[in-house]
Amino acid sequence: MTDATIPALVPGERLLCGPGPSNVHPAVLEAMQLPMNGHLDPDFWDILVDLVTGLRSLWRRPQGGLTIALSSSGTSAMEAGFMNLVDPGDTVISCHWGFFGSRLNEFAQRVGANVIELTAELGQVVTVDRIMEALAAHPDAKIVSVVHAETSTGADFPLAALAEAMRSSDSEALLYADCVTSLGGQQVDADAWGIDYGYSCSQKALGCPPGIAPVTVSGRAVAAMQRHQSAVPYYYDFEELSKYWIDRPITYHHTMPILQYYALYTGIRLALEEGLEARWARNADAGRYFQDEIRSRGFELLADPDHQLVELTAVKVPEGVDGKEIQGRMLREHGIEVGGGLGPKAPPIWRVGLMGVNATRETADRVLGAFDAVLPR
Amino acid sequence: MTDATIPALVPGERLLCGPGPSNVHPAVLEAMQLPMNGHLDPDFWDILVDLVTGLRSLWRRPQGGLTIALSSSGTSAMEAGFMNLVDPGDTVISCHWGFFGSRLNEFAQRVGANVIELTAELGQVVTVDRIMEALAAHPDAKIVSVVHAETSTGADFPLAALAEAMRSSDSEALLYADCVTSLGGQQVDADAWGIDYGYSCSQKALGCPPGIAPVTVSGRAVAAMQRHQSAVPYYYDFEELSKYWIDRPITYHHTMPILQYYALYTGIRLALEEGLEARWARNADAGRYFQDEIRSRGFELLADPDHQLVELTAVKVPEGVDGKEIQGRMLREHGIEVGGGLGPKAPPIWRVGLMGVNATRETADRVLGAFDAVLPR
Repeated sequence: MTDATIPALVPGERLLCGPGPSNVHPAVLEAMQLPMNGHLDPDFWDILVDLVTGLRSLWRRPQGGLTIALSSSGTSAMEAGFMNLVDPGDTVISCHWGFFGSRLNEFAQRVGANVIELTAELGQVVTVDRIMEALAAHPDAKIVSVVHAETSTGADFPLAALAEAMRSSDSEALLYADCVTSLGGQQVDADAWGIDYGYSCSQKALGCPPGIAPVTVSGRAVAAMQRHQSAVPYYYDFEELSKYWIDRPITYHHTMPILQYYALYTGIRLALEEGLEARWARNADAGRYFQDEIRSRGFELLADPDHQLVELTAVKVPEGVDGKEIQGRMLREHGIEVGGGLGPKAPPIWRVGLMGVNATRETADRVLGAFDAVLPR
Repeated sequence: MTDATIPALVPGERLLCGPGPSNVHPAVLEAMQLPMNGHLDPDFWDILVDLVTGLRSLWRRPQGGLTIALSSSGTSAMEAGFMNLVDPGDTVISCHWGFFGSRLNEFAQRVGANVIELTAELGQVVTVDRIMEALAAHPDAKIVSVVHAETSTGADFPLAALAEAMRSSDSEALLYADCVTSLGGQQVDADAWGIDYGYSCSQKALGCPPGIAPVTVSGRAVAAMQRHQSAVPYYYDFEELSKYWIDRPITYHHTMPILQYYALYTGIRLALEEGLEARWARNADAGRYFQDEIRSRGFELLADPDHQLVELTAVKVPEGVDGKEIQGRMLREHGIEVGGGLGPKAPPIWRVGLMGVNATRETADRVLGAFDAVLPR
């Protein structure tokens, strides 16, 4: 039998300034060339201990609960929490104002939750007051889910304020927070705020390749997982994962994507060496600089200025301009990836991400220069 | 706030001759340094088209059905098929004779299957006749699940013979085959045999890093997935995955672990360039050589000689020898990883894998030399 072969892999150079992935830090790429250890190698278990320390620093949950990473993309972490926490009929107050919030809403429905939806226009967010009113109206709610940084619109949700309001209330609902675009790029303070289930990804503000999802679970959410009744997919069963990540002697769970964990380890180490505050400041500086510059050229942004993310900017495509064509020319003529609108409901926008190594004014200038070149004014 | 930092990552050199991962082919490691494209980059969609061609060649399913890869470890693919095919109460004839078959059995139970278990002693396999008798006794069975290459014992199951018997019978049950250790290392012929749901991993016979799971679904299994009623986790919903992998224009599903797919692409390309038959022969030669040599030293193997895998050999630890101590010395004194028994029921064994780049007599000699050095005779 002759088996069809495939051509050599020759991907083009890219400056990745869309909604993610961002370009990988060179030191992270180097780490992926380190000697691969096995997932049951005692030295790798030691690496895991340090990795957990790093993850805890990153999430700012130095102790308590469970802070690990999932061996799959951030999307899997979006639903893994629900799968571990929601029994059919449990009430989830699902707040959404964009593609990822809608997806989270769908995932709550997939696990059979009684979903109470609170929505806002694209570019806006639901107010903390409205969420607290919904919580008061549904005192049995088990979970409130929100997207901290809505990558489809560039909207920044005041997660700290919601967390404080929930802590100050009588509600025992768990705070379920999508931090996919925020973690490592802006303040996320799992313990001080009280994030019960937080998840992120590797390929945005952390500057690692995609494929791994850092998660943090508070002590009370761990307890809720223990009370949870429904069957959980084994790959996402936090009780089982904990036996590998935390307990010693180790219990084999799955074969870890070792090189991806070397990458994540190194990305976190770089973030901690830079200092989280310094890193947030760098992200804010780059984002605000880009936003000022693009607005000064006459473009409008989709997000409410009071809720504008720093990591990602959704720029409205001006009337009469073919957004997709411009996006294609940015790619073909300048090697720069920017995103378009996501999903069928998306308005005509470009989504520009400055994350990880790309969160600099220099990268912002490269993107601005390419826009200037392809967009006649 | 001062965030705890973590030490530099300094993993030791390893010759990985356990049950997997195996060492990564240098060209695969190089591919992971290629410029990263985004998952929505039109050039990456072209890469996906070629990757699907390569996966189809590897599985020998040149057309029909669905052949893709999951963005997570082989363990996830073990349960993904059940999650897409089994509604609560569906009958699964679950055949198991080792750790991974038992795990598959547990996964069938997790999705609520009516599980009919057929078991054999460690090192043995259930005969095709027994399976066909069970199928005759349970004509409503929806699935028969087997492990082609049981990595915990080294037992090789005659998958081709079962497939032929099932095809020749009146049964409409689907053949669910764990090919985690077999794919790329020995004959797997999804179409000619009639594998309905086959899955594997990246890190064994394919010589790629762990983290990706190639899967193949037959046309009739795709149809069964369409009839399936229960909610499926989105990350593993084959209908949704197909909209990204196959349909054009593309529908965003999740952020693909791009570098891992570059690795898989390259690993498959290398396998096809070598030629699958030639690769199987290389694996067989290395495995049989190691087995002859280790037996000639007076060691016994766990698997029935009529069902001895080539990729993995389970060597019985001789009476009076501390298997774990020897395993530790192999690692510390020779930088060689070999496996031990897996799970609480495992007998004292060493598991030696010669897979991917390590499927050579030269690597076998290195392992044998280390055994000779640490095991006084």
